[in-house]
Amino acid sequence: MLLHIVFLISLLLSTYSNASVQDFCVADLKGADGPAGFPCKPPATVISDDFVYPGLAEAGNVTNIINAAVTPAFVGQFPGVNGLGLSAARLDLGPGGVIPLHTHAGANELLLVIHGHITAGFISSGNIVYQKTLKKGELMVFPQGLLHFQVAAGKKGALAFAIFSSANPGLQILDFALFASNFSTPLVTKTTFLDPALVKKLKGVLGGSG
Amino acid sequence: MLLHIVFLISLLLSTYSNASVQDFCVADLKGADGPAGFPCKPPATVISDDFVYPGLAEAGNVTNIINAAVTPAFVGQFPGVNGLGLSAARLDLGPGGVIPLHTHAGANELLLVIHGHITAGFISSGNIVYQKTLKKGELMVFPQGLLHFQVAAGKKGALAFAIFSSANPGLQILDFALFASNFSTPLVTKTTFLDPALVKKLKGVLGGSG
Amino acid sequence: MLLHIVFLISLLLSTYSNASVQDFCVADLKGADGPAGFPCKPPATVISDDFVYPGLAEAGNVTNIINAAVTPAFVGQFPGVNGLGLSAARLDLGPGGVIPLHTHAGANELLLVIHGHITAGFISSGNIVYQKTLKKGELMVFPQGLLHFQVAAGKKGALAFAIFSSANPGLQILDFALFASNFSTPLVTKTTFLDPALVKKLKGVLGGSG
Amino acid sequence: MLLHIVFLISLLLSTYSNASVQDFCVADLKGADGPAGFPCKPPATVISDDFVYPGLAEAGNVTNIINAAVTPAFVGQFPGVNGLGLSAARLDLGPGGVIPLHTHAGANELLLVIHGHITAGFISSGNIVYQKTLKKGELMVFPQGLLHFQVAAGKKGALAFAIFSSANPGLQILDFALFASNFSTPLVTKTTFLDPALVKKLKGVLGGSG
Amino acid sequence: MLLHIVFLISLLLSTYSNASVQDFCVADLKGADGPAGFPCKPPATVISDDFVYPGLAEAGNVTNIINAAVTPAFVGQFPGVNGLGLSAARLDLGPGGVIPLHTHAGANELLLVIHGHITAGFISSGNIVYQKTLKKGELMVFPQGLLHFQVAAGKKGALAFAIFSSANPGLQILDFALFASNFSTPLVTKTTFLDPALVKKLKGVLGGSG
Amino acid sequence: MLLHIVFLISLLLSTYSNASVQDFCVADLKGADGPAGFPCKPPATVISDDFVYPGLAEAGNVTNIINAAVTPAFVGQFPGVNGLGLSAARLDLGPGGVIPLHTHAGANELLLVIHGHITAGFISSGNIVYQKTLKKGELMVFPQGLLHFQVAAGKKGALAFAIFSSANPGLQILDFALFASNFSTPLVTKTTFLDPALVKKLKGVLGGSG
Repeated sequence: MLLHIVFLISLLLSTYSNASVQDFCVADLKGADGPAGFPCKPPATVISDDFVYPGLAEAGNVTNIINAAVTPAFVGQFPGVNGLGLSAARLDLGPGGVIPLHTHAGANELLLVIHGHITAGFISSGNIVYQKTLKKGELMVFPQGLLHFQVAAGKKGALAFAIFSSANPGLQILDFALFASNFSTPLVTKTTFLDPALVKKLKGVLGGSG
Repeated sequence: MLLHIVFLISLLLSTYSNASVQDFCVADLKGADGPAGFPCKPPATVISDDFVYPGLAEAGNVTNIINAAVTPAFVGQFPGVNGLGLSAARLDLGPGGVIPLHTHAGANELLLVIHGHITAGFISSGNIVYQKTLKKGELMVFPQGLLHFQVAAGKKGALAFAIFSSANPGLQILDFALFASNFSTPLVTKTTFLDPALVKKLKGVLGGSG
Repeated sequence: MLLHIVFLISLLLSTYSNASVQDFCVADLKGADGPAGFPCKPPATVISDDFVYPGLAEAGNVTNIINAAVTPAFVGQFPGVNGLGLSAARLDLGPGGVIPLHTHAGANELLLVIHGHITAGFISSGNIVYQKTLKKGELMVFPQGLLHFQVAAGKKGALAFAIFSSANPGLQILDFALFASNFSTPLVTKTTFLDPALVKKLKGVLGGSG
Repeated sequence: MLLHIVFLISLLLSTYSNASVQDFCVADLKGADGPAGFPCKPPATVISDDFVYPGLAEAGNVTNIINAAVTPAFVGQFPGVNGLGLSAARLDLGPGGVIPLHTHAGANELLLVIHGHITAGFISSGNIVYQKTLKKGELMVFPQGLLHFQVAAGKKGALAFAIFSSANPGLQILDFALFASNFSTPLVTKTTFLDPALVKKLKGVLGGSG
Repeated sequence: MLLHIVFLISLLLSTYSNASVQDFCVADLKGADGPAGFPCKPPATVISDDFVYPGLAEAGNVTNIINAAVTPAFVGQFPGVNGLGLSAARLDLGPGGVIPLHTHAGANELLLVIHGHITAGFISSGNIVYQKTLKKGELMVFPQGLLHFQVAAGKKGALAFAIFSSANPGLQILDFALFASNFSTPLVTKTTFLDPALVKKLKGVLGGSG
Repeated sequence: MLLHIVFLISLLLSTYSNASVQDFCVADLKGADGPAGFPCKPPATVISDDFVYPGLAEAGNVTNIINAAVTPAFVGQFPGVNGLGLSAARLDLGPGGVIPLHTHAGANELLLVIHGHITAGFISSGNIVYQKTLKKGELMVFPQGLLHFQVAAGKKGALAFAIFSSANPGLQILDFALFASNFSTPLVTKTTFLDPALVKKLKGVLGGSG
């Protein structure tokens, strides 16, 4: 019975030969981005490595003031996630390491602790902090657009991965938005009630203008 | 403690340097439109004015048969709304002014009355008219794809703004669809039960063919 | 020819009699909210007033420290917008009034200035401030999840309306999230680099705990 | 090797035993509708017949003024399509039969002709009619929210099926919206420029009030 | 009153002249595909035939091992469905004809039987088969991503049309995925528990490598 | 200046007191599931633990025929992900462990290897296998609805986490769908071309009926 199935193949497959069926859409990063993501690489040029990202295997360098590093695997680094509503980042935290208060404008986040202890939390619209100290293997979810943080707990460092519900989740770090930007001191002061002298000092340290 | 945060900036920001994080996607109107909107302008060329549209500040000219004018701020006029699911239009109504019965194929609408009184309404699939005479500061919502209208009430004109749940909401004005198009008189007649003589007369007035 | 169309009605309409066609879904606020919004009021009980919200007609009380008031017309106040991806708020700004730095987690925003001058802006993920002083009739769009602000410019107050691409856009005011919440002082300090003494002072003023 | 896979089953399946995996969501029509559709029947009560709809097998009765009948298989009739973004309708056209000008507010439509010839078309926002006389086995697509029609061509009747990109596509028939509703004659007149006498006559025939 | 509406047209239409309102987005198949579909043909070049597909009018050739043929009308064949979330396929089944077990990765399916009897079914995540023998005019719905099949019942052939909730639904035929691909025999064996000799034999027949 | 901000709080917060702003929608698993997920727990009863899932911290039991275990953290186990388009699973692989060929009907998947080596791959609609042996810290993405597998490579076991673009991704294991279900032997045979004797044998082992 199986002997002649070969006929089927040529028939059925040829039927689809000029259909450009879209199982996936690996980003052509040279094409223009659009509201739904990047245009697709031609399917014939797609290879296995397009769906694999090795860049999170190495620890980030945490010799910095926050004792922490964030390494992204967003569509800009990992074209295979284009259009799939998923991306990731590696969070290395040295002892006392801190991922400062930040938001992802367009993505929910799932945090997975690999080793160490991490105190993580987010603040709701109702000004309630939902927080927990997480252990190895535990998950926490952060709804999109809300301020949240991750801090190494205890005396050791920690490793975690964050996965986002967007191929391009954005990242707004509060301190940078306020003090490393061109947000003018009078407007920062007026819209946050922080003291102008403090704002100027922080802008000086973080390199902000205005 | 803040002294060395500057190291953090270079480290963290450089990490993101080749990521094309997509907070927004200002339309490049010279690019080809797609199902999700226009391709994005390169982020480095985006300026504050891309997010601002001044074109609704001026009143439309209502010296016409409907004593009314609709001025759109859709993605074609206001590229900053591309991909954001929002756009707007200004409705100027002279005394007795009328926005004729129309639909927006792909958008819900929120009407905000700025001054004057407007009788507005829509017709449901169940052939019920939901209508109200609205005053300054009142809102009315029109679900997508349903026939609706706005008419100046009382003896004065009115001003309102409509906001749409799409960057490109479409606008099908019933009279134009029937009588200013190439919709043939026999087919208009057959599919609306209007009298052929009337259809021909209206086509003559509105410039339709067929 | 029209004489017997009456037969058509009974035939065609009866065909649809047990279909619950969903043109709209006015929120039954007593039902349990879900990821897509509230359950619908039974269509037979829906009236014109469900689609109209008069609550933004009155100015908010700006005799407060920010000389400003925000009055929402979200699904909780205006059940007619349920499921339609639109809602609104009225912004009253007294002289020098300020809408403090805030985000909407799940909605883009379109700001429409009705009178006065408003300096408005948002900060991108790339730490660039896009800002402009807007006049009467001008529009500005704020992409979702990014910190933004509105401030009365000049010596007079201003009035504006904000429209959101969600029936329930959320509102996280930065100062409240940090200082009116139960976000502990050590964690605020650690994740923002603000001075503990300042944090404690602001928490005292704004009523935060921890 | 296969001998002990039975262990696997108990292990793996039990792992999932309290997960309510959602392959489908057959409508519980007694539950309250919501913006995304009806609540799901408990999966354990779902049977094959929930996914099958026999109601389009019988021809509709075309002995009426339009020589046509539309039989719907929307979620109200066919609960299995709930949440799946698909539904259907059967179109029976007697000789000269007409599906009058109408719109579906929230759904695109694909028309498939089974026998006979059908002249079908839609009118764009730009007031262009795209129309064609279709034969057996031909497909035509109608973008959502635009006025469109189907008319039997030639001297015989025709049969077609329409499939919609929504489980609950809505149906607004222009004549009914205008003349079988409670849309007041002055407002119909004002917003369509039709003659009041004509409007009153049509309202009389179609049973409209106002 | 109608006499001067002509003024309205020039006024209102000119207002929209530089807006690129998007009622539809006929695929420009020479443009690069993206996550939301193909870029749009310039609206001015769109014609009625873009919305019509005649290619399903002819029966497929069923003189093959499965006594069946599938003829697609996906966006690759029918550019008018681009971005509209709908496409179709014709299923010709000779006596005993079989559409082998397959999935559509990104689309729900509605099956409509035109003549003959078809036994159709799908398997849920919970390993339950929902199946039915369908007659002329009956519909069955298949939720996305689940294995399903269609088989001619009785002694005669059958004709059906499948409609999908995507313009590009994909098609993964189980036998081809396993035995006509480059899926290595050791991995097929290891991940399916099928016997290596059987796998090799089937790969030989179906032309798979590895 | 900060002294009186306390007035602001009472004013602004009271404004929002009867708005049910929806930052998140923790599943009330006792409510009826719907197309968009479960109804929300009342916000006032939500606690930090609702956003945390500890159940993936423990290794699954791999003493079974596949030397592997899959532990899900879908909405049924982890109500905090309801409506957020994210969920996870832990994959424990003993030496030679296998996650058999399977699909997730409604979700893309991101695989993150924690330790060991895993050979993983998926088969496209075009019958091409994209596969790679992944090391610790590497990511691979699997587009939704396509058959894929994960196998421990080398002589040791491995640990990985899978994250899905849905709170309820489904899981169809090919062997179980075919041989542990009520899929009748004649239909399995007819739609897969497998030998009836083999099908019966596998059904016997896996407990399928029919």
